[in-house]
Amino acid sequence: MSHKKSSHTRETAIRGHIVTFTGDPFFHPANESLRDIPDGLILVQDGITQAVGPYDSLIAQLDKNVVVTTYSDGLITAGFIDMHTHYVQASIIASFGKHLIDWLNHYTFPEEARFSNREYATTIARIFFDELLRNGTTTALVFCSVSPQSVDVFFEEASRRNMRMLGGKVLMDRNAPPAILDTAQSGYDASKRLIAQWHGYGRNTYAITPRFAPTSSEAQLEAAAALHREHPDTILQTHVSENIAEVDWVQSLYPNRQGYLDVYDHFGLLGNRTVLAHGVHLTARENARCSETGTAIAHCPTSNSFLGSGLFRVELAKNTEKPIRVGLGTDIGAGTRFSMLETMGEAYKVAEMTGFSLDGVKLLYLATLGAAESLGIADKVGSIAVGKEADFVVLDTKATPLLAFRSQQVESLQEQLFVLEILGDDRAVAATYIAGELAYRRARQAPPPHPKLSTSKKEPV
Amino acid sequence: MSHKKSSHTRETAIRGHIVTFTGDPFFHPANESLRDIPDGLILVQDGITQAVGPYDSLIAQLDKNVVVTTYSDGLITAGFIDMHTHYVQASIIASFGKHLIDWLNHYTFPEEARFSNREYATTIARIFFDELLRNGTTTALVFCSVSPQSVDVFFEEASRRNMRMLGGKVLMDRNAPPAILDTAQSGYDASKRLIAQWHGYGRNTYAITPRFAPTSSEAQLEAAAALHREHPDTILQTHVSENIAEVDWVQSLYPNRQGYLDVYDHFGLLGNRTVLAHGVHLTARENARCSETGTAIAHCPTSNSFLGSGLFRVELAKNTEKPIRVGLGTDIGAGTRFSMLETMGEAYKVAEMTGFSLDGVKLLYLATLGAAESLGIADKVGSIAVGKEADFVVLDTKATPLLAFRSQQVESLQEQLFVLEILGDDRAVAATYIAGELAYRRARQAPPPHPKLSTSKKEPV
Repeated sequence: MSHKKSSHTRETAIRGHIVTFTGDPFFHPANESLRDIPDGLILVQDGITQAVGPYDSLIAQLDKNVVVTTYSDGLITAGFIDMHTHYVQASIIASFGKHLIDWLNHYTFPEEARFSNREYATTIARIFFDELLRNGTTTALVFCSVSPQSVDVFFEEASRRNMRMLGGKVLMDRNAPPAILDTAQSGYDASKRLIAQWHGYGRNTYAITPRFAPTSSEAQLEAAAALHREHPDTILQTHVSENIAEVDWVQSLYPNRQGYLDVYDHFGLLGNRTVLAHGVHLTARENARCSETGTAIAHCPTSNSFLGSGLFRVELAKNTEKPIRVGLGTDIGAGTRFSMLETMGEAYKVAEMTGFSLDGVKLLYLATLGAAESLGIADKVGSIAVGKEADFVVLDTKATPLLAFRSQQVESLQEQLFVLEILGDDRAVAATYIAGELAYRRARQAPPPHPKLSTSKKEPV
Repeated sequence: MSHKKSSHTRETAIRGHIVTFTGDPFFHPANESLRDIPDGLILVQDGITQAVGPYDSLIAQLDKNVVVTTYSDGLITAGFIDMHTHYVQASIIASFGKHLIDWLNHYTFPEEARFSNREYATTIARIFFDELLRNGTTTALVFCSVSPQSVDVFFEEASRRNMRMLGGKVLMDRNAPPAILDTAQSGYDASKRLIAQWHGYGRNTYAITPRFAPTSSEAQLEAAAALHREHPDTILQTHVSENIAEVDWVQSLYPNRQGYLDVYDHFGLLGNRTVLAHGVHLTARENARCSETGTAIAHCPTSNSFLGSGLFRVELAKNTEKPIRVGLGTDIGAGTRFSMLETMGEAYKVAEMTGFSLDGVKLLYLATLGAAESLGIADKVGSIAVGKEADFVVLDTKATPLLAFRSQQVESLQEQLFVLEILGDDRAVAATYIAGELAYRRARQAPPPHPKLSTSKKEPV
C-alpha cells in the first residue's frame, strides 16, 4: 500500500503545454513566478519528476524505450490541491436552507454518525476520491468524522490510490449528539493511534482535527495542542470565523478570550503547521496574528456563499505587510462543487464583490503552489519541478462548445487560464496523473463544437 | 418562417414525470401552486398542448397512430425563460477584471460594434441559440446591438427555430463610441421599422430597448416612450441600479430626478410591459414604485457577482404588501452561465447571503411561470397547460455521477428540484422541445455512475 516497490525503475514521459509556478504571483509579476513552456516535456521516474523543460532541449535525455504521451490540445499543470474538505459530507452536498450552526445540527451531525459503519464509510470514501480525480484534485486536506474507523478507511483509500492526502479524526467533546462525541482523553488516544498508524505511511500526512472551538472543551483544545507538540510535523486543522453567529457563540463560550482566533492562540494551536478554514470574519488584528504565527487560511468560496456566511477578503491576507498563506478549499458538503476550476471561478466573484480582482494566474496559484505552501508540502507537490512528486492535471481548453468557442479568442496564457476558471468544470479535466501514473482519463466528449469564427477577433469589421 | 403550415395536423405525445406551476409559490403553498404528475402524459397538436394529466387518465384519448416518447428517468417542466440576456455579448463571456462602466467601455462597446457585419452577427446568433437549447431555455428577452441588422439576424434565427423570443435594437445616443450611437430620431425610426417587420411575426415579440439612462438623452427616452405608447403590446426593456457608480452617474446626469428609477418614471417608461434588469440597489421607495406601476425585474445573479455589482434582495420584491414580478436572467456576457439551472443555484446563494432562503420550487418558478408572468406571456408559455404553446425541457436527475448519487437520496420533489438546481448544468438537460417538436437532444452521457449506496439513507447504521 505504500510507494510501489519494483525491481526495475518505471519511467514515463508527458509532452504538452506546461504551466507551473516558481513563485507567488501575488508578490512577483507573472513572468517571474510562472513558468510557461508551450511545447514542454516532463520526465518521470518512479513517481518523481526527473526533468521538465522545452521538448526540444530534453528529448535527447529520453530513453528511447520510454513512450511519450502527448497532449496536443491542453494545458498541463500541477494537480489541484483542495485545502479544506469533509469526505464524510459528500452525500449532504446540496442540502437546503441552513446557515452554519443549523447546517451542522440538521444535516452534518446525523450524517457523520453513520461513519462508524465501515461499509458505508468505504462506499463514500471511494465516491469522494473518484470525484477528486474526475476534477483534477490530487491532494486534499480532509476532515474525517469523529469515528477513528472513518480515518482508517480514508487513509486506506488514499494509500490504495497512492495519493498525497492529509486528514484526521474530528475531535468533538461537547455541543453535538452524544453518539458522535469523544472526550479530551479518548480523542487524544485515538488520534495518537492513528498518527502512529498512518502519519508518514506512504504519502499520508496526519492532521489533528478539532472541529472548531464550540464543540471542543478547553481540555480538548489543550490535548490537541499537546498532541501537536508531540508530533510537530503533523498538520493541525480547524475552522474559524466562518459565520457571525458562530463568532458570537465562541465569544460567549470563551468570555476571557479576545475573540475567536485568540481561543486557538491561547491554547497554542496557531503556527506554521496550522490551517484554519474560512476566516471570513477575522478582524484586522486577527489577520495580523495569523501572519505573525505563520497560520494559513483555506478560502472556501462556494461554501461561504451557499451557507450565506459572508465574503472572504483575500486582499487582506495576500498583502506584503502582513502576508498570510492562503489556498482554496471546496468545503464539501457545504461547498457545492468538487471542481477546483469552479472554485477558482467562485473565488473570482467573491473577490470582485469585495473590490479586488483575482486574475487567472493568481487563482491557479491558490489552487496549486499556494495551497502546497500553505500546507507545508511545497517541497513535494504544488508545481512541476525536478525532485517533486509527479502529480499533474491535463486541462482541455475545448472541453465544452462554449469553452472551445471562448478559448479560440484568447490572446494570452493569463486570459486562457481565466476562461478555464470561469467556464470550466469537471469536463475540462482531460486526465489526472498521480505520481506519474494515469489515474483518471475523461471519457471522450460528445457534444459537437460551435463553428469557428469566420472573422478574426482583431480584424476590423 | 412563421408557424408551420401543414395540410394535416401534427400530433405528438410525451410521457414522464411532469412538474408545472399553476400559481406563484411565493404567495401560495407548493401544493396549491405546483402540479406534480409522477406518470404524466402531454398531448400536443400543431405546437399547442391539447391535454396534460396522469397517463392512465389520458391514454384513452390518444390516437393510436401517435407515437408516445417516454422519459422514464427525469422531470418534464415548461421550458426555461431567460428574462435578460445579450446575444451580442456571447463572445465576451469570461472577460477579466472590470465592473459595470469599465466593462461596457472596455469589452462591450468594441464587441457590439462588430454586429454591423451580418455574417458575424449570424455566426454569433447561431451559437447563442444553440446554447439556449443545450441549456433548456426556450424563451428569452434579449438585447441586440445598436445595429438594426443585428435585430434582423436575431429574429431570423428565432423564426427559423420557431422559438418564442423577445428582443430589440439597443437605443443609445450618447456616452459611447460614435460608431455605435444612433440619435433619438434614427433610433425611433429604426425601431419602428423593426416593429413593423418582426413584432407578432411568428412567435416574435419586439422589445423597445434603450440600453440605460446614461447612454440615452432625454430626447431618446421621450422617443422610446412615444414608440411604446404607439405599440403598447411591445415590451420595453432597460437596465436599472445594477452598480453603485452607475446609480451615482445617473443622478449627476439627471439632477432633477429623484433617483435612477425616477428617470424612467418621469418619461413614462414604467408599466406592466416594462422589464428592468438588475435592480440591485433600488431603494424601498423605488421598489414600491415598481410594484405600483407593474414594472417587472430580471434578477441576474451570476452577472451581479461576476461584475461585483452587489446582492439583489429577492424578498423585497416578492412580498405580499408591494409585490413585484420577478424572474431570472443570465445576462450573458457579464453572466457566466447560459444554464438557467446554474442561474437558479446562484440565485439561491445570493438570497442566502441576504438572509432569505429560496427553495427548489420557488427557484424553478422564477425561471418558468414567474418569468412568463413578468413578460406578460403567461397565457402562451411558462407552464404545461391546455392551450399553451408546447415548449418543454426534460431534466435528467442522473446526468453526472454526483447528481445521480445525490438524487438517489432525495425524499421529495422539492428536494429533487433543489439538488438539480445546485448540482445541475447543461448536462442535466436531456431534451428541449419547441412547440412540441424535439429541438435538442443531449448526446449520450459517457461517465459511469458512482455505486449505489448499499445502505438506505434512512436505515440506522
